[in-house]
Amino acid sequence: MESAINTLVCQFKTFAGKDGSATTLSKDEFKSLVVSQLPTLVKNASDPGVIDQLMSSLDQNNDGELTFMEFWQLIGSVASKHSGLC
Amino acid sequence: MESAINTLVCQFKTFAGKDGSATTLSKDEFKSLVVSQLPTLVKNASDPGVIDQLMSSLDQNNDGELTFMEFWQLIGSVASKHSGLC
Repeated sequence: MESAINTLVCQFKTFAGKDGSATTLSKDEFKSLVVSQLPTLVKNASDPGVIDQLMSSLDQNNDGELTFMEFWQLIGSVASKHSGLC
Repeated sequence: MESAINTLVCQFKTFAGKDGSATTLSKDEFKSLVVSQLPTLVKNASDPGVIDQLMSSLDQNNDGELTFMEFWQLIGSVASKHSGLC
């Protein structure tokens, strides 16, 4: 499990580091992460409305940026609906 | 990222399915998961006090079982403190 956790942490950092703060995801960073990394788990991610809706549901402090824990909520809710190919 | 998420979902199911409800982790299931899967990220997991403290901090509805989302909180908090070997 630890290597899987490491993958998620590193991917967050990779995308968060693209512009602005290196510890949060801007909307653009969030969109490029979701489109490229979660093509199966998040449908229609290219639709701006989908990203806006996801972002507003996660961005608890409404600063237009997603912290790691706010991002982690998305992964958890997506994962909980994902039966898993075990 | 999706395969990493799949790993976490499947591991949760593997351990949750050992006894009682197949959708929640009992304390014993939780302990065996943490000891075997998170040896680096959760120190001294063999110490019953560590597991009790983790369990009580996560078990929001105090039913002695951890749902996936309660479990996911742990992984998120541990991951957020983990700088990641990127």
